[in-house]
Amino acid sequence: MRFIISRNSLVNALNIVSKAVTNKTPIAVLTGIKFDLSNEGLTLIGSDTDLSISTFIKTEEGDNKIITIFETGSCVLNAKYVTDIMRKLEGERVEIELVDGNLVRIVDQKSNFNLNSINVSEFPFIDFSFDNNIIKLKGDVLKQIISQTKFATSQKETRPILTGVNFKVDGNVLETVATDTYRLAKKQTIIGDTAYFNVTIPARNLDEISKIIDGGEEVIVNFFEKKVMFKINETIISSRVISGIYPDTSKLIPDMFENTLDTLTNEFVSAIDRASLLSSDRNNIVKLSLNKEKVEISSRSQEVGSVVEKIANYEYVGNKFDISFSAQYIIDAIKAIGSNDIELCFNGEMKPFIVKNKEDNSVIQLVLPVRTYQ
Amino acid sequence: MRFIISRNSLVNALNIVSKAVTNKTPIAVLTGIKFDLSNEGLTLIGSDTDLSISTFIKTEEGDNKIITIFETGSCVLNAKYVTDIMRKLEGERVEIELVDGNLVRIVDQKSNFNLNSINVSEFPFIDFSFDNNIIKLKGDVLKQIISQTKFATSQKETRPILTGVNFKVDGNVLETVATDTYRLAKKQTIIGDTAYFNVTIPARNLDEISKIIDGGEEVIVNFFEKKVMFKINETIISSRVISGIYPDTSKLIPDMFENTLDTLTNEFVSAIDRASLLSSDRNNIVKLSLNKEKVEISSRSQEVGSVVEKIANYEYVGNKFDISFSAQYIIDAIKAIGSNDIELCFNGEMKPFIVKNKEDNSVIQLVLPVRTYQ
Repeated sequence: MRFIISRNSLVNALNIVSKAVTNKTPIAVLTGIKFDLSNEGLTLIGSDTDLSISTFIKTEEGDNKIITIFETGSCVLNAKYVTDIMRKLEGERVEIELVDGNLVRIVDQKSNFNLNSINVSEFPFIDFSFDNNIIKLKGDVLKQIISQTKFATSQKETRPILTGVNFKVDGNVLETVATDTYRLAKKQTIIGDTAYFNVTIPARNLDEISKIIDGGEEVIVNFFEKKVMFKINETIISSRVISGIYPDTSKLIPDMFENTLDTLTNEFVSAIDRASLLSSDRNNIVKLSLNKEKVEISSRSQEVGSVVEKIANYEYVGNKFDISFSAQYIIDAIKAIGSNDIELCFNGEMKPFIVKNKEDNSVIQLVLPVRTYQ
Repeated sequence: MRFIISRNSLVNALNIVSKAVTNKTPIAVLTGIKFDLSNEGLTLIGSDTDLSISTFIKTEEGDNKIITIFETGSCVLNAKYVTDIMRKLEGERVEIELVDGNLVRIVDQKSNFNLNSINVSEFPFIDFSFDNNIIKLKGDVLKQIISQTKFATSQKETRPILTGVNFKVDGNVLETVATDTYRLAKKQTIIGDTAYFNVTIPARNLDEISKIIDGGEEVIVNFFEKKVMFKINETIISSRVISGIYPDTSKLIPDMFENTLDTLTNEFVSAIDRASLLSSDRNNIVKLSLNKEKVEISSRSQEVGSVVEKIANYEYVGNKFDISFSAQYIIDAIKAIGSNDIELCFNGEMKPFIVKNKEDNSVIQLVLPVRTYQ
């Protein structure tokens, strides 16, 4: 293997595949990135077995020569070292050569590195081939789906299925759900394709996928029984899916509500944020007091003191009542809605309530209240 | 105590005195900031006993009314809570009132906080009065003195005196020295005043002082036997000095050198930075190979590989030799010099060497080499 490559292109590709590589693995070869140079270009592969990423650099891009190939071949280089070196070199182009089976020379005008290569034959085979069970999404749509649901996944490993986001495709509707049993985020997206599938994708992997998506590009999602793959331009991401059946959440969201509060996102969030300053409780519990004449958010801590926040701009339809909830949960939910005004719909002080955008029912955030203590 | 104050002015003052307050103290009253309202204005005081800061807000600034006083008085409020609350309130002005001995009301149009006050009588008396043993420095000069020496202080508590920067005023020369015994930073500053003093100031306190200095203002430094005080506009900082005699370092810096390397800061630092990527050693040891025809920096790790960096722009006067040192120490030293080109002067491979600016002898950085292994 010997080639000269545009350093910029290589750094970008290394940044992508590095997202699947961890230093914490006991399997030495998985701390590395596989370089695979064919006559068409350079394929880089990284994997922690849970998440695997492959990306491809073509020899030419339009009129630009990206790679000059002298000899094809493969090697595995430690992800951290090769990425750090490539970032810190100064040359526009670098030469990379497998000197013998073990040593890789990386050279530009100023620098001459000799890196020990990890045995390429030990690198696991990862199948990145696609079949027909696909849907297509715009990159920014998928990014939004992830950001509107992922935060509601469970952090606890007691029910592993809840640490992922459930993707259910039923005909031309993609329904994504996340819940930690105290709150639930649900998003519906109409898709151009027709497919039937139900998989749960680990939240951490969705995070990495989201970082790789630029926004405007098309993302092809391919569902398998034990994995899901995403194709974004020249990058393919393969994620394990969490085994088990995702709980049926379809009946959790009420159809009817007794009380409705419409208010401005910024004003409401700022008031909750301030009120939560004093809630000594680790869950940041605040109380919302509703009636037609006055809407207030309050909080009290024996040790520190108390606070009452007045909401000036609102419309409230319903009877007078108080409800308490986690400030963090409600702020997460409102931010996920992402609109300037929001609607909160209640059925009484101990019933789950929802946060949504009045004009758009595609995202619904459900939150469980906690008991109000005075 | 009852007054209305410009929230901006109060937030700025709280940010300053908060630097002296820690939550980790077992003395409850020291988690607080003392508010002292007289007819002239509001004094805020924070202290962790090692570092104490007082700042003063005048009732008026030019034509601007900053504070409207209804009733003078004092209280102590938890530093974290009061600072967070003031930052997050939205009103331009806030009203603060000591309702009874224990409760402080903080109010603007939207918010109504009641904070428990800490017993003001428990707050320690801190003497912020000045005497005549002073020197005056421009803020940016003091900031530079700190940044050019502080990094070389010791992190280890085995010799406490070395965890501080030594300030020695001898007539109209201020000499500041820091050393961790492996390297030494020395800066000389000509001052307008005449004084005689020798104190060692904890590095951490110098950090906080540096953050408070804006740049253009005059700083008055007042030396005492057990403390040193800095007056910066309306802020007075009192720092403990470290007891003990600072070691005599005057004979450590050689007058004569056998070999001299002149080179460009950026090029040299980048090469060292890259070479140190592979030094598995925790001290990042790199080797500098000097001769008239070629200057190179190299490093080698059994596990990872090796690297050779060529320096293109240099002038070397001296015989051929190799010297090894900590990449981090040399980069720290060069950055502290802060000039585009640097001079390194050597006396052989196991003798201390210095880094300086050819045109300016006021800052000298001394570094101890380590043995070169091949």
